[in-house]
Amino acid sequence: MTDTLLIRNVRPAGGASTDVLVRDGRIAAIGAGATGGDTSFDAGDRLMIPGLVEAHTHLDKSFWGMGWHKHTAGPALIDKIETERRNRREFGIDADRQSGRLVAQMVKLGTTHIRSHVDIDTETGIAGIEGVMAMRERLKDVIDVEIVAFAQSGLLIRPGTLELVDRAMALGAEIVGGLDPCAVDRDPKGHLDAIFGLAEKYGRPLDIHLHERGEMGAFSMDLILERVRAMGMQGKVAISHAFCLGMPDIDHVRRLIDDLAKERIALVTTAPASSPAPAVMACLKAGIVIAGGSDGVRDSWNPYGMGDMLERATLVGLRNNFRRDEEMELALDVCTYQGAKVMGIENYGLEVGCTADFVILPGETICEAIVERPADRTVVKRGKIVARHGELTQPIA
Amino acid sequence: MTDTLLIRNVRPAGGASTDVLVRDGRIAAIGAGATGGDTSFDAGDRLMIPGLVEAHTHLDKSFWGMGWHKHTAGPALIDKIETERRNRREFGIDADRQSGRLVAQMVKLGTTHIRSHVDIDTETGIAGIEGVMAMRERLKDVIDVEIVAFAQSGLLIRPGTLELVDRAMALGAEIVGGLDPCAVDRDPKGHLDAIFGLAEKYGRPLDIHLHERGEMGAFSMDLILERVRAMGMQGKVAISHAFCLGMPDIDHVRRLIDDLAKERIALVTTAPASSPAPAVMACLKAGIVIAGGSDGVRDSWNPYGMGDMLERATLVGLRNNFRRDEEMELALDVCTYQGAKVMGIENYGLEVGCTADFVILPGETICEAIVERPADRTVVKRGKIVARHGELTQPIA
Repeated sequence: MTDTLLIRNVRPAGGASTDVLVRDGRIAAIGAGATGGDTSFDAGDRLMIPGLVEAHTHLDKSFWGMGWHKHTAGPALIDKIETERRNRREFGIDADRQSGRLVAQMVKLGTTHIRSHVDIDTETGIAGIEGVMAMRERLKDVIDVEIVAFAQSGLLIRPGTLELVDRAMALGAEIVGGLDPCAVDRDPKGHLDAIFGLAEKYGRPLDIHLHERGEMGAFSMDLILERVRAMGMQGKVAISHAFCLGMPDIDHVRRLIDDLAKERIALVTTAPASSPAPAVMACLKAGIVIAGGSDGVRDSWNPYGMGDMLERATLVGLRNNFRRDEEMELALDVCTYQGAKVMGIENYGLEVGCTADFVILPGETICEAIVERPADRTVVKRGKIVARHGELTQPIA
Repeated sequence: MTDTLLIRNVRPAGGASTDVLVRDGRIAAIGAGATGGDTSFDAGDRLMIPGLVEAHTHLDKSFWGMGWHKHTAGPALIDKIETERRNRREFGIDADRQSGRLVAQMVKLGTTHIRSHVDIDTETGIAGIEGVMAMRERLKDVIDVEIVAFAQSGLLIRPGTLELVDRAMALGAEIVGGLDPCAVDRDPKGHLDAIFGLAEKYGRPLDIHLHERGEMGAFSMDLILERVRAMGMQGKVAISHAFCLGMPDIDHVRRLIDDLAKERIALVTTAPASSPAPAVMACLKAGIVIAGGSDGVRDSWNPYGMGDMLERATLVGLRNNFRRDEEMELALDVCTYQGAKVMGIENYGLEVGCTADFVILPGETICEAIVERPADRTVVKRGKIVARHGELTQPIA
């Protein structure tokens, strides 16, 4: 590893071509003719964007690199949950190995930070958490991973799960996870009191999966808002999916958006094409932080996905009908700066002094890069080149 | 050009590995140990799928290869229509050159048949039609293109346009186009009588853009149904977009779907993530032919798109929440066999006797190919290799 790196002829954020000097893992200088650097390379006027932020995925259960598995789960949530637990046993999905494989793919494509929900249940216990923790220790030079202790199969309906989540938090998971307090746990008060209790006990933030649609989702969201207000947890809670914000009653949606903004509750979206979803522009205009995520990549839930947050920017753009250049740039913002805000990443960005986490890739403009998603990406993590022209510089799976 | 071609170790439709012999532009034999062929190659157990069918695009007005153009059009339909006419003048969009460039991209990615709507208006006249006709004559060995004479700026509200569409049909356009009889032309009866009249005059099919949503779109659709019934045009009419079939009133949608099936009216969808759209499964179950298209690729309307119908299959899958393998295969069906039905392509498919239009690409299963959209595609058009491992064998733009 070199301590300094000089990148010549690169266009940060699609601006004019310049030189960028990286020293000790940070952006030390920006400007034509910056000098120094044990290593230097000419970026040939390629774009530079900040490292992509994967703010919602499930690293522990991907089939990545395990061949194609036929998808057989029915459409209901409970079918997917039960199919998944069966698959985990039958296919031998090792969280350490599988999370490493998916991280390798994500890093190659420019992701520098990941928030991963990791399954905890009474069958697997906290093996998933331990596996992902082992992986992140192993790969700490190439990726930052934040772990959400996540009771995928339900928290209260499966006795013993809450204690396991507590253990995961004690072990060092950063975020307390929640899941559909009505639809899965059938006890919204019980579920939310339990996870907010854990968040208070460990002084950690919350990230709550909320697939519940329409008025049921809005009810759960209100219960979350009440607890954030009562406990002073503004800025410490994220709601993932938040499908209810795509419901037809726009007056109700507007009221919820105002309340979320006021309590500084962040959102994380996959920009799903087949379900209601929060409108990104309305959320940003209200001042809500809204980040993007792939959700599961090639797992029992989701057969799709390349682990590519630039593709996610395309999907955010398509889902929100972003066609003007400034709108499309917001789609990338969702997958970069907004994600950094949700995850509380310090010194994120392309300014002097920021951590040198960035991606260099072809494109006349940022929008062209979003649309074309070129495979040729050079990825720098804390000042070190971890992928060059779309290939990892070191095997990391 | 060789007359025979032997492809060894290829998996048609994802089945067992076999050999495929192509002779005189057709599939002459399928079976391990098929012999003959002036040329042969080993496909290394790659998949073989039929040539991709692009059933709805706008070749004449793409910016492909012209650099990035900032998108400035407002959200309304009329903004886009007027911005486009201005862009055509200001950017110098030549239909022959631009359609050729986009065809080159599409062919490289495995498209073997295209239905292109081509703009006709009182500013450009039929120059677009003539340009695309020149292109298709030039590139007839690598692509089949069907031309829809399309009054993008309105048919009746801009006097003189109907006569131009008539001239385009006389010149050899295959399909009479229509556009939002209420929303754009403000005269649904007048618009539909005019285009059905032209269809009758030239004995040609119709393809009608119907962006109109909800009850307005349903009204236009009913007027189309009435004319199909009255004129006996069953099997001769396609409706593109058909956003109204995504309206919330499912009883009304169900009635329309039944009527469309009965009159054998086909649908073409882009599977848009940001607007209501026909549900592919419901349409297929009712017996409606429903094909896929990219719509505009990098033009004044749409900044997105790679001209990739395998990506369209992914988007069809995502939009329709197709997760099971058999559902995902239907998404590809929409971009292959269903498109062939809409376009009336004879001898389409992977059986002995079919025209040798196909794509060879990596993938353990069809679903994996849909999800990964590998760049490495070898494309055969009428028995001739037009692209090899993702690169055109001859420059064709």
